[in-house]
Amino acid sequence: MIKTGVVGGTGYTGVELLRLLVGHPDVELTVITSRSEAGRPVADLFPNLRGHTGLAFSAPDAGGLEACDLVFFATPNGTAMTMVPGLLEAGVRVIDLAADFRLHSKEDWEQWYGMPHSCPDLLEQAVYGLTEVNRASIARARLVANPGCYPTAVQLGFLPLLEEGLVDTAHLVADAKSGVSGAGRKAATGSLLCEASENFKAYAVPGHRHLPEIRQGLGLAAGRPVGLTFVPHLTPMIRGIHATLYARVHDAARDLQALYEARYRDEYFVDVLPAGAHPETRSVRGTNHCRIAVHRPQQGDTVVVLSVIDNLVKGAAGQAIQNMNVMFGLAEQTGLTDVALLP
Amino acid sequence: MIKTGVVGGTGYTGVELLRLLVGHPDVELTVITSRSEAGRPVADLFPNLRGHTGLAFSAPDAGGLEACDLVFFATPNGTAMTMVPGLLEAGVRVIDLAADFRLHSKEDWEQWYGMPHSCPDLLEQAVYGLTEVNRASIARARLVANPGCYPTAVQLGFLPLLEEGLVDTAHLVADAKSGVSGAGRKAATGSLLCEASENFKAYAVPGHRHLPEIRQGLGLAAGRPVGLTFVPHLTPMIRGIHATLYARVHDAARDLQALYEARYRDEYFVDVLPAGAHPETRSVRGTNHCRIAVHRPQQGDTVVVLSVIDNLVKGAAGQAIQNMNVMFGLAEQTGLTDVALLP
Amino acid sequence: MIKTGVVGGTGYTGVELLRLLVGHPDVELTVITSRSEAGRPVADLFPNLRGHTGLAFSAPDAGGLEACDLVFFATPNGTAMTMVPGLLEAGVRVIDLAADFRLHSKEDWEQWYGMPHSCPDLLEQAVYGLTEVNRASIARARLVANPGCYPTAVQLGFLPLLEEGLVDTAHLVADAKSGVSGAGRKAATGSLLCEASENFKAYAVPGHRHLPEIRQGLGLAAGRPVGLTFVPHLTPMIRGIHATLYARVHDAARDLQALYEARYRDEYFVDVLPAGAHPETRSVRGTNHCRIAVHRPQQGDTVVVLSVIDNLVKGAAGQAIQNMNVMFGLAEQTGLTDVALLP
Amino acid sequence: MIKTGVVGGTGYTGVELLRLLVGHPDVELTVITSRSEAGRPVADLFPNLRGHTGLAFSAPDAGGLEACDLVFFATPNGTAMTMVPGLLEAGVRVIDLAADFRLHSKEDWEQWYGMPHSCPDLLEQAVYGLTEVNRASIARARLVANPGCYPTAVQLGFLPLLEEGLVDTAHLVADAKSGVSGAGRKAATGSLLCEASENFKAYAVPGHRHLPEIRQGLGLAAGRPVGLTFVPHLTPMIRGIHATLYARVHDAARDLQALYEARYRDEYFVDVLPAGAHPETRSVRGTNHCRIAVHRPQQGDTVVVLSVIDNLVKGAAGQAIQNMNVMFGLAEQTGLTDVALLP
Repeated sequence: MIKTGVVGGTGYTGVELLRLLVGHPDVELTVITSRSEAGRPVADLFPNLRGHTGLAFSAPDAGGLEACDLVFFATPNGTAMTMVPGLLEAGVRVIDLAADFRLHSKEDWEQWYGMPHSCPDLLEQAVYGLTEVNRASIARARLVANPGCYPTAVQLGFLPLLEEGLVDTAHLVADAKSGVSGAGRKAATGSLLCEASENFKAYAVPGHRHLPEIRQGLGLAAGRPVGLTFVPHLTPMIRGIHATLYARVHDAARDLQALYEARYRDEYFVDVLPAGAHPETRSVRGTNHCRIAVHRPQQGDTVVVLSVIDNLVKGAAGQAIQNMNVMFGLAEQTGLTDVALLP
Repeated sequence: MIKTGVVGGTGYTGVELLRLLVGHPDVELTVITSRSEAGRPVADLFPNLRGHTGLAFSAPDAGGLEACDLVFFATPNGTAMTMVPGLLEAGVRVIDLAADFRLHSKEDWEQWYGMPHSCPDLLEQAVYGLTEVNRASIARARLVANPGCYPTAVQLGFLPLLEEGLVDTAHLVADAKSGVSGAGRKAATGSLLCEASENFKAYAVPGHRHLPEIRQGLGLAAGRPVGLTFVPHLTPMIRGIHATLYARVHDAARDLQALYEARYRDEYFVDVLPAGAHPETRSVRGTNHCRIAVHRPQQGDTVVVLSVIDNLVKGAAGQAIQNMNVMFGLAEQTGLTDVALLP
Repeated sequence: MIKTGVVGGTGYTGVELLRLLVGHPDVELTVITSRSEAGRPVADLFPNLRGHTGLAFSAPDAGGLEACDLVFFATPNGTAMTMVPGLLEAGVRVIDLAADFRLHSKEDWEQWYGMPHSCPDLLEQAVYGLTEVNRASIARARLVANPGCYPTAVQLGFLPLLEEGLVDTAHLVADAKSGVSGAGRKAATGSLLCEASENFKAYAVPGHRHLPEIRQGLGLAAGRPVGLTFVPHLTPMIRGIHATLYARVHDAARDLQALYEARYRDEYFVDVLPAGAHPETRSVRGTNHCRIAVHRPQQGDTVVVLSVIDNLVKGAAGQAIQNMNVMFGLAEQTGLTDVALLP
Repeated sequence: MIKTGVVGGTGYTGVELLRLLVGHPDVELTVITSRSEAGRPVADLFPNLRGHTGLAFSAPDAGGLEACDLVFFATPNGTAMTMVPGLLEAGVRVIDLAADFRLHSKEDWEQWYGMPHSCPDLLEQAVYGLTEVNRASIARARLVANPGCYPTAVQLGFLPLLEEGLVDTAHLVADAKSGVSGAGRKAATGSLLCEASENFKAYAVPGHRHLPEIRQGLGLAAGRPVGLTFVPHLTPMIRGIHATLYARVHDAARDLQALYEARYRDEYFVDVLPAGAHPETRSVRGTNHCRIAVHRPQQGDTVVVLSVIDNLVKGAAGQAIQNMNVMFGLAEQTGLTDVALLP
């Protein structure tokens, strides 16, 4: 059994981690911290956990984390970096679901996140946890930087094209749509049902924090820096990301359907749909799958890739469990075989 | 392994049964029939099942059902009664998720369902599958009539009061609210997103088919006929039933919280919340639980019971699996331990 | 032209008032105050008002209110009572959309609202602004206490029965369902889309602040105190209240349909539907109408009344405009003739 | 008063036309036809119209249309072309809200709509009713082809760039998102609340019927054929279209904000938001406005235009009324000055 702790379990990423951890056959959840909710039973805050765990939140400094084999951080950006060095020193492995270790460049990180980084040396050691790209490094990693939700959907959608050098990498477009849970559980006017339902809008068009993360990953796949226009949108639903990706292909003769199927043939969690299909976000609701379809409308030189995930699962907690499974030598899908709830 | 067949798997009850059956450790799903979709892979119609089953729909008369240990009917009312006698004769046990065998009285059935019953003798043999009431009979049953969604929520909410004779049974009120999936997957104008979202309404106030079913169950619990006003409402969401129940108590001194806790202490799927709580439908989304709270506002003589279920699970497919577990001597919660998806 | 001011225009009641006021032919909107948004153009906060008003929020103490003919308060409870005495003294008439002047009894008010009332003498002078009941007094009123949303739907639904003494007034039940906008525009976790959509729950069953207000109104109609069980529920939609009302009738022979039609024959904003109908909240979305249907299921002694309003219009801003029209001698429907947006 | 008729008033475009027409000060609505609902009062089908019109549907061949000054067609594609020639001959002017007369090329029309065109000569006479482009011709037109919903949002968003020749017209991208009302009121499984809510998907990526219509309009604006990738998506809400448009600009120094403001300065219904803004669909809900924002992320060579409309108003019924106002010499905004319902 993997002795596991969670730091910051009161947000949506946290409760999703808990949902998956309490059902995982090889995990013993030993501690979950929250400064604001210390002492309160977890199932009191999240009624779906009634009957599944008797654990209560403890204060972050109440101890117990250092006795874990693995600690997940489901905290706001900037928290994990203050605690991770100590845990690593104590021999605890760490998966950070926040952004603290996602960018390799300290300068980029500090520019986009607006604060100094307290342990920039760890930026190099941290392994970026897009399992389908870095599986081998993740297996050995002490610190995994779990990818952002948009970056997961966009990278998995673009990777085959970039790895094969098939498209104009200077003008990629990622038009992404997210459910409101991507904004987290904090009480913000813009996330109210009365503001966000029956409404659709783009946001952060001048620049979203996931832009440098996506660029970094796509650049590594392409072997050179890429130009990317990334436009996120808020969709009136709880869960789900749909990324619609546009690129200009050089080689009009290439069979892109075959390319995608080959690239992801051995990936349990990436499902390339038959030619002509349109993936729906609900088909992955509550699951760790990414479903992808590839189109070239009117046989033109623009390829359109449709990529869907559940932002809280493959885009956060599920991918973290997937990485844990890899780190501890378990079958990658352990604890992640639920069927999506439909309808 | 229980060899299992499903008749009529193209509706919401059907896909929910499939979701639960493909994850059940003791079930081998061998045949699923649909006249309209014969030949089509199940995962093609329901993309959440991609990767979980390779089964295709077969025609109802293509055979295979008689070789099953158990057949579920997820068909429109009036279909099961034409096939069940033959299956029973072949030694197959049956759980009908439609209404064909829910009422003991042929006359009541024919009045409310508007057609002659083709095997009225089976109405007596059939066991009404409200597990928390008829567990022992279900274990021995050849034919189980799985309860309706509203009847499940309303009966579980009222039972402790009626079994103890604590309330005026002549004037019970059940004000029930259902998500739209209760109307099924057929293309009907009233179930369109544009008609049913951002809208709330009552329907069938003069008389809903679940009324005689609820009256029958409550009458048995009370030991005499009951008077019930039942008002169903359509709520702009997919899943969930919330029943708000009103009754006048005779004995103002009785501790109702203790009564409910005692009645359901040993029931895995019925969760009596702490005093003062308000259950939410999302706390049981995708699960087989019923959560209940009991209130007596301002210490008056009106008791208010709040009872929530997922109409497709405890109100349909989940309770059917629960009954199967009982019929085949398995632990009652086998295959039904998922945590609700929240948010 | 009526010179009009609005105090506290940043909530949903405020923006709805503005929507109706900018389209009202006899109103000149001269000042709108907000401490937090002083200086900001109204259309910047509420983009639907772009092109309809150039007004900016001003600080509440920046003056201008005393020069108005009429001031609306769309403030949190407890604010209006601090400013109203001064305005009345200055000859300004006032409509308070909050609860400060709704209860006649100082003791009741202080118990339910948890603070001392700063001008209890005005509780007597204030006219309760349920137009269909108090039209004549409203016409002469200097201070109108605009009813709460639930109280409007519940009282209009029950009134004909109580005024005629047809029902058991000791055991009335009001099961009410509201859209989330009833909770206002403040950032609260429970009002987030991810908490409130795809979910249904009761709340405040032990006691909601609208209970004494409803009891007061029904008691006046009945001519004696009434017993009422009031259970509010949160429904996953933005606008709308559906009240389902239950009462036991004494006189089984009475034609209730005719009674309701007669009571509301001359009321522009109360629409009694044909026998057998079920009103939908969307049929009044954005309008000041209340639509009502009366049922007596299975010809029993329980009458079921269905009453729907838009909580922000007839339940708040629209009724305030209706009262203004009455106070200033205009046709009652002036500025309130929009057709509901459907779908 | 303009004597007006509506053919086919039972869909969402129809009821929206009725909502706007009953409130229009210069219109007398004299006939509304529906084969399936002949004889039924309009307000019976659409309860929002109760109290606003006493009109009943009549059979299409029952007469009355030829006595109108203007007839609107809100029919499925292929119906208007069978009736329009006769009406024109009778001196009636026509606005067709379907697609029968939107394309200039008979060949294109027959290819995309899959049927022969019965009066191809009228394709040339018909004026394409994008008011902001063809105002002068519309004023004189006998037959106006009202634009599709997507084409309206996309063309208004792209026009300034194309008219000025500022972008690479060979590789335009329009990523568009629509509410479900765009699919109409017909009972189709894909439009059910349980299928379309809590879900997001692209559709018709290989080719949507609005593609040739958009290409035709953009080509005219650019003065040469354009290359366009158009991807429509289904969004879980009732009303609203959000078009996110991508193009590569030649001239990095050009002030695009100023360009857009200049182009639409005199357009009542096109609102160019301040630099940096993100329009929301709800800001135009129920209104005839198009709100637009222009971005050039990270000062790159990709321009991103955000364009929102209400698909049933500016995308259908509202634009039809706008065109009627132009045709009959009324102020363009007559009957179209409602404020959007927010929240």
